Amino acid sequence: MLDYAQLAALTAIHRRGSFDLAAAALSVTPSAISQRLKALEERMGTLLIQRGQPCTATPTALPLIAHFEQVMLLQSTLTTPTPTTLRPTNLRPTTLRIAVNADSLATWVLPALAQTTGLLFDLVIDDQDHSINLLRRGEVCAAITSHAGPLQGCDTLPLGALRYRATASPAFIAQWLPTGATAQTLALAPALTFSDKDRLQRDWLTTTLRTPPHFTFPTHRIASTHGFINAALLGLGWGMNPDPLTAQHLANGTLVELIPNRPMDVPLYWQFARITGAAIAPLTAAITRAAAIHLA
Amino acid sequence: MLDYAQLAALTAIHRRGSFDLAAAALSVTPSAISQRLKALEERMGTLLIQRGQPCTATPTALPLIAHFEQVMLLQSTLTTPTPTTLRPTNLRPTTLRIAVNADSLATWVLPALAQTTGLLFDLVIDDQDHSINLLRRGEVCAAITSHAGPLQGCDTLPLGALRYRATASPAFIAQWLPTGATAQTLALAPALTFSDKDRLQRDWLTTTLRTPPHFTFPTHRIASTHGFINAALLGLGWGMNPDPLTAQHLANGTLVELIPNRPMDVPLYWQFARITGAAIAPLTAAITRAAAIHLA
Repeated sequence: MLDYAQLAALTAIHRRGSFDLAAAALSVTPSAISQRLKALEERMGTLLIQRGQPCTATPTALPLIAHFEQVMLLQSTLTTPTPTTLRPTNLRPTTLRIAVNADSLATWVLPALAQTTGLLFDLVIDDQDHSINLLRRGEVCAAITSHAGPLQGCDTLPLGALRYRATASPAFIAQWLPTGATAQTLALAPALTFSDKDRLQRDWLTTTLRTPPHFTFPTHRIASTHGFINAALLGLGWGMNPDPLTAQHLANGTLVELIPNRPMDVPLYWQFARITGAAIAPLTAAITRAAAIHLA
Repeated sequence: MLDYAQLAALTAIHRRGSFDLAAAALSVTPSAISQRLKALEERMGTLLIQRGQPCTATPTALPLIAHFEQVMLLQSTLTTPTPTTLRPTNLRPTTLRIAVNADSLATWVLPALAQTTGLLFDLVIDDQDHSINLLRRGEVCAAITSHAGPLQGCDTLPLGALRYRATASPAFIAQWLPTGATAQTLALAPALTFSDKDRLQRDWLTTTLRTPPHFTFPTHRIASTHGFINAALLGLGWGMNPDPLTAQHLANGTLVELIPNRPMDVPLYWQFARITGAAIAPLTAAITRAAAIHLA
């Protein structure tokens, strides 16, 4: 069996970023932290913490940390008192590591989290097409993802769809797309791309303009939802922006669709490790309630 | 000398994420892309592209890519025509990779970028205390950083300071800090932390409450500037928020300072590779103008 004191040390180093802060969090000496981590690394036969400023967990360590947090989460649902050795008080309340796509974070997720008391949230912001990998690798215990499942050991609830529109400022359209949004004009007009993982702009071009798979277009890269919208407002480029954040701008004309009424829907799902399902039930309820209000 | 056709292939794969898209961008066949990359990898004696979906550059490749982009940037300032072999048209306009801290991106940087024509921006969002490392490693050609310099090969311009205040919602303060913001109450009240690199909350506690270096406090993690502020408004936690985004909330009482009038100033600098100084002079002028208006 895994040694949970060792896992607590590993998790605390990862959370706090240093051996000293981990020691303070667990109310033990730094040398105890160091010994526990070393014992765990010897047992696992691999490096678990990359020493540095801050110390970070190696890819091998992340599933162990997620496991420890799931155990703590399960423990929090016990009604009988647990031995204090299994309950590092300064790591409480339990931290829930969740993958959230940036646009959901910016539009509808936070109020749902705020309704859930007694938990700390460690939000991993990742593209909805890729967050499933974090869940598969055990780095998060739940994810808002575009992956419909099934995923081994996980339950999936459909949340509805976030609606995107290809938008730009009127000045941008006048400058770059005077003859309309076509494959010819969009091959030269600067686009906005959130990150290397973001395929929304390309997918919209393929669906709407039937551009070939290798169609290339110049693009800025701005990995911030509000940065994305502000860049569109300022005329830096065109991009796929989510309706909840642009409805106002579309209504008052500060943003316009490249082609009227050609939205793209991205269906979203709440996927969570089945073993923690009961423990996070209040969060799941809050998430599905908020999604029902804000998603299409 | 380095083979710039090989570097163009490497850069295109990194930017586009696949060999096929890189081939389309450079108007050559995928097999030409593959051969050029292989030749470059053999010459450098190391893997430069991690094959996958998407393909990503290895740490060794990043300085090569940054070098190629600097060369393209320098080339763009030439008044004499350059041979087309050195000018992969579909990679133009030149992409400028810049490190920006999330709070500057959310508050004052984008209008400055929008004033600069003819460039694409690849914004790397990183903590102001750490972006200097990206510049040092040659992964970006300029950075908004809290590092005053000097840095070898770089020029530094002071931009002023972004002012932060420890803020929370009135409901949060009533629930968690009924007896005031002290080391005792803040050891239990949930904080907000942007990422593992974010030391603002800890620094404010140390400066204002003289908490010991190993003082621990529970915290959420939300790596989004607007997410951070919304989480504070919703009562999830307290955090250091920048004045330009909270002035309105502080004025109308939806956010309040944990301790009145105890701001923390974070001085910011514009650091850029000296060799590209002339090429990015219009951007530098726009950045310093915007900073003069928005920073303290």
